[in-house]
Parts: sequence; C-alpha cells; structure tokens
Amino acid sequence: MARIICAGLGPGDPDLISVRSDRIIRAGRNIAYFRKAGRRGQARQIVEGMLHPDAVEWAMEYPVTTELPFNSREYNDILARFYDDWAERLAQMPGEVVVLCEGDPFFYGSFMHLYTRLLGRVEMDVVPGITGMTGCWNATGVPITWGDDVMTVLMATLPEADLVHHMAQADALVIMKTGRNLPKVRRALQAVGRLDAAWLVERGTMPQQRVMKLADLQDADTPYFAIVLVHGQGRRPEIAE
Amino acid sequence: MARIICAGLGPGDPDLISVRSDRIIRAGRNIAYFRKAGRRGQARQIVEGMLHPDAVEWAMEYPVTTELPFNSREYNDILARFYDDWAERLAQMPGEVVVLCEGDPFFYGSFMHLYTRLLGRVEMDVVPGITGMTGCWNATGVPITWGDDVMTVLMATLPEADLVHHMAQADALVIMKTGRNLPKVRRALQAVGRLDAAWLVERGTMPQQRVMKLADLQDADTPYFAIVLVHGQGRRPEIAE
Ligand SMILES: C[S@@+](CC[C@H](N)C(=O)[O-])C[C@H]1O[C@@H](n2cnc3c(N)ncnc32)[C@H](O)[C@@H]1O
Ligand SMILES: C[S@@+](CC[C@H](N)C(=O)[O-])C[C@H]1O[C@@H](n2cnc3c(N)ncnc32)[C@H](O)[C@@H]1O
Repeated sequence: MARIICAGLGPGDPDLISVRSDRIIRAGRNIAYFRKAGRRGQARQIVEGMLHPDAVEWAMEYPVTTELPFNSREYNDILARFYDDWAERLAQMPGEVVVLCEGDPFFYGSFMHLYTRLLGRVEMDVVPGITGMTGCWNATGVPITWGDDVMTVLMATLPEADLVHHMAQADALVIMKTGRNLPKVRRALQAVGRLDAAWLVERGTMPQQRVMKLADLQDADTPYFAIVLVHGQGRRPEIAE
Repeated sequence: MARIICAGLGPGDPDLISVRSDRIIRAGRNIAYFRKAGRRGQARQIVEGMLHPDAVEWAMEYPVTTELPFNSREYNDILARFYDDWAERLAQMPGEVVVLCEGDPFFYGSFMHLYTRLLGRVEMDVVPGITGMTGCWNATGVPITWGDDVMTVLMATLPEADLVHHMAQADALVIMKTGRNLPKVRRALQAVGRLDAAWLVERGTMPQQRVMKLADLQDADTPYFAIVLVHGQGRRPEIAE
C-alpha cells in the first residue's frame, strides 16, 4: 500500500525548507507536484537540483485554473474529478510518494484535497513548512505583529464589501491571491484608510522577489505569488521620552 | 562591529528548523537567547546537541514575566531597559552573534525589540521560521483554511469582549498566549457558539505535545506553549452526491 508524505516547501528559497522536508525530498523516488499545464510549476522549481537521479516525477496538471469562475458548478466538478483521479492514482502506487507543496500544506494548500480523500485509506505524513506570508513579511524587514495585535488573513477573491469589513477590524493584515484582484484590494484598503500603510511582496524569498509600498505600484495586477501586507503597530516596551 | 543573525527555530521539533537556520546555529560561536530566570529556556532546549563545542552562550533573562500586569508603566519601563541593555551589549560584541528565536522571529517575537533598537546600527539578518501556530494546526491533522476562509489570530490577553467580537467574524481562529487566560477564551468561544469546534494544542511538535478538543479538557489553565484553534470549513471541490 502507498505511503504518502507531503513535504512543505516553504515560501520559495530552498534554504528555507525544513531539515526534515529537505531530507525527504532528496531521498524520494516518486515525486508528485501540482502545476498549471504547460508550466514548469513553482513547487518543482523550488526543488531544482535536489531530486535523486532515479526519482520519477508525477506532474499533476490542473485541468483548469482561471478560465472558469471558481464558484461555478462546472469548475467545482472538473476540479473534484481531478482530485478524485489523482487520489486514486497515488493510493495505488506501490511504494512511497513524496508530494511537494508550496508553503505549509495545511494552509490553503491544494494537497488538502488529496489528503481528505485519502485519509484512513493510506498512510500519510505531512511535514509543515514556512508559509508564504511568513516569507513575505520577513522580506519587508518589518515585524508583522506586536503585543496584542489582531492579525487577519484574507483572500483577495472575497467580495469587496467583505474585504472592507474585515480590513477595518484587524491591526495586521495579510491579503493573499492578489493577482488580478489587485484593483479591488487597493480600493478596499483605501476605503478603510490603510492604503498608505500597505506593502506588496511579489515572489517573496524567490530569485525575482520584489518588495514595495503598494501605493508606489503602477501595475494593475500582480503575479500569482504575491501578498499584500499591513503591519501591526501594537504595544512595545519603550522608555517614554 | 557586531553582526547579528536571528535564527527562527520553528515550533519546537529541531527537525522543523530551516536548512539555513540549522547551518547558522551549528556554526555559531556566540549564541544568545531569551529565557525566564532560573529556567533552561525553550529556545535553548530546541537546539540541544546542535551547538558548536566552542560556542559561548548568552542567556538574556527576562527581569519580569507575569509578576506585573503587562500594561503597567512599571512593567513597560523594566522591560524597555532590559531590551535597551541587551541591544547595547550585542551591538558591542566583536563578531557574529546568533540570536535564537522560537517560531518566526517577526511574528510576536521578543527579538523584534532588539531588532528595532539596532536597526541601522549593526548588520542584521533574520531567518524566517515555521510559526508555532503552523506546527499546532499540523499537529491536529486537520487543514486550517480552505477556499476563501478568513483566518484571524488573537492573543488571549485581549479583553473578553474583544475576543468575542473577533471570534464572531472569522472562519478560522488561532488563539495564542492562552496560559492563565484559558477560562476567558473558553467563555468567549462559548459565547459565539464555537467551543465545540475548538482544539487545544500544547507544546506542538515538542516531545510532550498534547492535542485535544478544548471541550474535553478539564484543566483551568495551559502551559505557556499552547494554542487554541478553530479550523475553517471553506469551499472545497467535491462531487455532490
Ligand atoms: C493556494 S495559496 C497557497 C499557500 C501556501 N500553502 C502557503 O502556506 O503559503 C497561494 C497564495 O499564496 C501566496 N504566496 C505563497 N507563497 C508566496 C510567496 N513566496 N510570495 C508571495 N506570495 C506567496 C500568494 O498570495 C498565492 O496566491
Ligand atoms: C511570544 S509568542 C511567540 C510566537 C513565535 N514567534 C511564533 O512564531 O510562533 C508565544 C506564544 O506562541 C505560541 N506558541 C509558539 N510555539 C508554540 C508551540 N510549539 N505549541 C504551542 N504554542 C506555541 C503560544 O501561544 C505562546 O504563548
């Protein structure tokens, strides 16, 4: 029976992979990863030069990414079948399969869809990773949360009104999946008076990392690997002047 | 002039340290870490067996922890002076100093107080780590966030009304610094109808890890390293039956 190990990869820099994931990836003889059809794939990119010479690669190519609205019935069914199929294929592999996963596998990760399908059917082991957001706030060189700061993580795919509502409540903000939703994110931040405090990190810890104040950005969209951050300003012990 | 490298340690299991932090810690000849006076210290504990035989250790012992209310003027001044002093001492060290930090250094970390004091004065490098919460949600074996889930991180030191307010807004919840605040956290979760969905993880990924449904816990408090979690239940592609 198959044994599936999901190795969290961290934000992008291979040096930020955990010691355990690093060991598992280098030893793995079956390496599986998601990617957009026709692309190299970010997960595969991160482990470049690390794989065993005998490793067999299994590229799990999404049948659809942004061509269909993600809340349509059609999108749901196509993706559900895709995950069903791969869960089946992995379960039938004779030995150990290492599934690569960007960031931390249990934090908005695609692996979770295989995990819930295979739970109780095959042996599974998940190795945590540094989340993309952690890599991104480190890239700004500014601590993200202090004292009693409340931090909220939002997907830019949410309706604008929801973004505004949540952005108004929290001290520190993390907005993921910005991509084509950037104009909406910008308007929402503006609405709560936080646009000037916002940073954008593209491809955090990767070779083409870009870090800037969001207000300075002219572009209308961002790459898929981009996060908007607003740092908390909470309590810190300082002698009053 | 000193060069300060803060090495994120991750949640507790030394195998979850990043490849970069691992290398830096093993090579370091000056190793500094915070601890409560009279204790071994969690950061030091994590790197047990990893330090170079010639490494000199610098234990930075908190002058006060829970003896004074954390929002009192006295507490503020004592801690401010403590961070001022250590910032000065580290800045004057002749070579490289590795400062150990549990989890990720920029996420509610004590190192941040040295960092802001030393910024622009000495060379500094911060190595991200897997946050404690990431180790904890992995320990539950259940993914923390799906689809468009909103995740909010709260400190249990917040007033009860604030906890209730924020707990009602988010899909996934992370509550840190539970410790003696556990009864308050329990009441707040109860008030928003989420107590039965809550998990408690004590010492996530450490040797004495304990994972349980919060409702099953009889104890009135938890150790310092404890996190309460409520998992998100967001969108996931499945074929309707
Ligand atoms: C499907 S989620 C996967 C999150 C991943 N499991 C993690 O722990 O970070 C993909 C989103 O994560 C964010 N992301 C992940 N890594 C990133 C990085 N290195 N730089 C910028 N954004 C990143 C982007 O917002 C992207 O749209
Ligand atoms: C001052 S904060 C430091 C957070 C740290 N920098 C991080 O990234 O996780 C201390 C709090 O983190 C939480 N924590 C950190 N590691 C933990 C672990 N392994 N298990 C349970 N709780 C943990 C606890 O709630 C604790 O009170």
